[in-house]
Amino acid sequence: MFKPMARKIYIELTPPSEGDAVADKDRIIRALEKDFGSVVMSYDVLKAHYMLLRNFDWKLTVTMIMKGHEWEIIQIERGNTTDKNYGYAVDLGSTTIIMQLVDLATGVILGQESMFNAQIRFGDEILSRIFYAKDKAEHLQEIQVCTLMSLNELIASLQKLTGISSSDCGIMVIGGNTTMIHFLLGLDPWFIFHAPYSPAFNSCGFIRASSLNLQFPGLVYCYPSAANYIGGDIISGLIASELYLNSPISLYMDIGTNGEMILGNNEFLLAAAGAAGPALEGGISKYGMQAKPGAVDSVKIVDNQIVLTTIQNQKPLGICGSGIVDLLAEMLLEGWIDRSGAFVPERSERIVQREEEYAVVYAWSSESASGEELLFTQNDIFSYMDTKAAANTMVAYLLEASGVSPQDIKKVYLAGAFGTHLNLESAITIGLYPDLPRDRFVILGNGSLAGACKLLLDASLYYTSESIIEKMVYLSLGEATDFLTKMFAAKFLPHTDLDLYPTVKEKLKSRNK
Amino acid sequence: MFKPMARKIYIELTPPSEGDAVADKDRIIRALEKDFGSVVMSYDVLKAHYMLLRNFDWKLTVTMIMKGHEWEIIQIERGNTTDKNYGYAVDLGSTTIIMQLVDLATGVILGQESMFNAQIRFGDEILSRIFYAKDKAEHLQEIQVCTLMSLNELIASLQKLTGISSSDCGIMVIGGNTTMIHFLLGLDPWFIFHAPYSPAFNSCGFIRASSLNLQFPGLVYCYPSAANYIGGDIISGLIASELYLNSPISLYMDIGTNGEMILGNNEFLLAAAGAAGPALEGGISKYGMQAKPGAVDSVKIVDNQIVLTTIQNQKPLGICGSGIVDLLAEMLLEGWIDRSGAFVPERSERIVQREEEYAVVYAWSSESASGEELLFTQNDIFSYMDTKAAANTMVAYLLEASGVSPQDIKKVYLAGAFGTHLNLESAITIGLYPDLPRDRFVILGNGSLAGACKLLLDASLYYTSESIIEKMVYLSLGEATDFLTKMFAAKFLPHTDLDLYPTVKEKLKSRNK
Repeated sequence: MFKPMARKIYIELTPPSEGDAVADKDRIIRALEKDFGSVVMSYDVLKAHYMLLRNFDWKLTVTMIMKGHEWEIIQIERGNTTDKNYGYAVDLGSTTIIMQLVDLATGVILGQESMFNAQIRFGDEILSRIFYAKDKAEHLQEIQVCTLMSLNELIASLQKLTGISSSDCGIMVIGGNTTMIHFLLGLDPWFIFHAPYSPAFNSCGFIRASSLNLQFPGLVYCYPSAANYIGGDIISGLIASELYLNSPISLYMDIGTNGEMILGNNEFLLAAAGAAGPALEGGISKYGMQAKPGAVDSVKIVDNQIVLTTIQNQKPLGICGSGIVDLLAEMLLEGWIDRSGAFVPERSERIVQREEEYAVVYAWSSESASGEELLFTQNDIFSYMDTKAAANTMVAYLLEASGVSPQDIKKVYLAGAFGTHLNLESAITIGLYPDLPRDRFVILGNGSLAGACKLLLDASLYYTSESIIEKMVYLSLGEATDFLTKMFAAKFLPHTDLDLYPTVKEKLKSRNK
Repeated sequence: MFKPMARKIYIELTPPSEGDAVADKDRIIRALEKDFGSVVMSYDVLKAHYMLLRNFDWKLTVTMIMKGHEWEIIQIERGNTTDKNYGYAVDLGSTTIIMQLVDLATGVILGQESMFNAQIRFGDEILSRIFYAKDKAEHLQEIQVCTLMSLNELIASLQKLTGISSSDCGIMVIGGNTTMIHFLLGLDPWFIFHAPYSPAFNSCGFIRASSLNLQFPGLVYCYPSAANYIGGDIISGLIASELYLNSPISLYMDIGTNGEMILGNNEFLLAAAGAAGPALEGGISKYGMQAKPGAVDSVKIVDNQIVLTTIQNQKPLGICGSGIVDLLAEMLLEGWIDRSGAFVPERSERIVQREEEYAVVYAWSSESASGEELLFTQNDIFSYMDTKAAANTMVAYLLEASGVSPQDIKKVYLAGAFGTHLNLESAITIGLYPDLPRDRFVILGNGSLAGACKLLLDASLYYTSESIIEKMVYLSLGEATDFLTKMFAAKFLPHTDLDLYPTVKEKLKSRNK
């Protein structure tokens, strides 16, 4: 039985009579307060609905949103419409926006649509959008308007897809990073990216959809942020993981353009974050690419020969994140590179010298070797290792600050597209993930979307999200004086201290004869 | 020390720093929640003020409104502006609107302005306005707009009068009858006047001034109504009287175009109301008039001769409510009329026959007897006695329903202009008020305005007003089967049962030789 954020309640009211002339609004509220405690109805909603009551038989369905300490009535309909109670779960990403239409009675996701965030016209990189908006109210408004347009397009698409009218949707829960939520609300995110990095708000509360011109009747709730880099998308994912519920200590990792990590359990939550850079998603190399058709997404070295797959089996165009991790792991295990990342040219004819550096020809841009060489160079490897080291160091910090040893981590939740498509063995081999029993790893997928959906179906998680914010301690890496030392130690494959990676040590011993 | 509805709090915040990157909004709220419990800031207010924080030294003044279970931030200003904290108290009458500007720090009323309610253009009578608005959304909106225009004019007048900017006013409390508050909010009041007489709402909660286009930053609170005829104006007056606070039983009377009565104490509140008609305010007689210059406002009969005063000592033009009550009382005591209200022509040469009925020439429209005769006729007297009887019967009902005897009434609060200007002895003599020791009568004046002002200065009365509504029992006179019998008994001067009026009985005995 769900306790969703939006409830539809069918009530049959005693019509007013002489001696019982309680006003219409108050009559409805009194009928509901017996079961629901504090119930409010705003002036707007009263004005929009009060005439409805007079023209029928006082049998009606009230849609209410749970706002923490009270329920707010957002719609009144004639008759019994309790079977039509829906909500939207949204992952508001800087590149892609995904929206689901959820049946709040059954918990079933009835449809999902996604599209590029229309903000992209103001810059692929989030930073270019921030510069575009800075000190220019009309630019800021342009960005807000096109974000809202994107959401309205998705609302319309879902209506078309499912046949369910947006007028039956009373609530939208959004998971998005701090900058995205600022843009959504038309607030300048400039200070998020400048010391001391404090946003305009962490928690924006419930906002009337109409005041944002979103085309459905009801309220919008955005997951609150805990800090500049720990946005509502991460809090949403944390809710999805349930990491905060249990006593075993777990690690939440969302690695993409940025890396966000949270270590904790039901007693503490320690967070760290930082720019991971485009490296991890394949943006580092000349031949790196996003995970699109033609990207090399897995690599094996069998009998000293490279065996690879590409997305949709198209001819190779470049290599994406999961391909890179495989390539590095396999080359390390086969001795094509050493633990410092340096090529060992004599190990394979695929290792060639191009433009004064070594590189591996991992494929050709056609089926035979007659096409253009697709290279991953020595510098690509070193850059990648920097980024990998940053991620690794964040985890090391969290462990040190909380006095937890790696083996105490009972679950590792991997959120985000990168975490979903990566080969786990390879990621451990190069030291991106800690070397733990494999059954401790949980692929969470899109945590932001999953958490939004979860909150839609369980109103009590509103309190959970607000209390997570209060409880969470944010470890500012900028303040850590030994960050560079730690990071240097992580700049080996998998790490300078091989004892931290016992299974990798084993593999290296057995294969790297 | 006042605890006003709007508070200005000066806070000096620790600026954000690395390791303390709590967002601006949340930083402010956390600083306030220590002392004030739950504090919220809406999206609108956040958007309007968030940039302010970044351009100065984090020393700021927050204006908050107490909304019952939480405080809402409605304004943020730089520096310390706590000495500028004002609010508006409003009596929204169907004829006249009165507004006061109140210093919420000192409780001093700094200015008062009044004007005719611009709604009058849609009809002098409230009923003609209701018919004008019925089923015509654009008419309803016209009435709303001109009501709001009147309020904005008064806001502007007060700014001019006092030199205090409306931007320093965060709260407006309005006392008005049920229809007036419906019109203010643009809601059709049709059903208030049709069986079963239930309004669209009793309590409208707090409304953003901007959503009504009222020209000040902050919130509007309208006193809730308890029933169609027991409007927010009466609840406001009740708060002003403090009748509900103490154990002695008291009676609240507001007689004007309508009559509203409340009997009760700190344990019960019993209300009754009905149309009193224009009679009591002088609208009944051809020569009756409102209390304006030239209206006869007091009458004595000395040595069988009429001695009168007029408002502003101008030559007589007619007679207003207080003059009528005096005239009737004096004629009764001097035997010019008997207890049934019938003229006794032989008692005075002023009693003449005009157009087939007796009448008293109470004055001439000039200083000598050469002007037009100002008459109060036999039918005027009978009509007036009907109205008087209705008011008297309401009190009788309240007493009977609660099992209280007249002598148990320890205080009688007289609200409204009529109650303010009436001669108490005369009103008792004709039986409009109960015959009680004179020191039990308290002239309250404009209770609606006084209660609005009181709430401005004591936020806890918000709960009081809401609980009064819950507690109050409304006695529907339309349901009472013996109303006509009771009313007939009251149609004598002062009453058929003279023992209910012992001091009047004494006077009649001693003067009416």
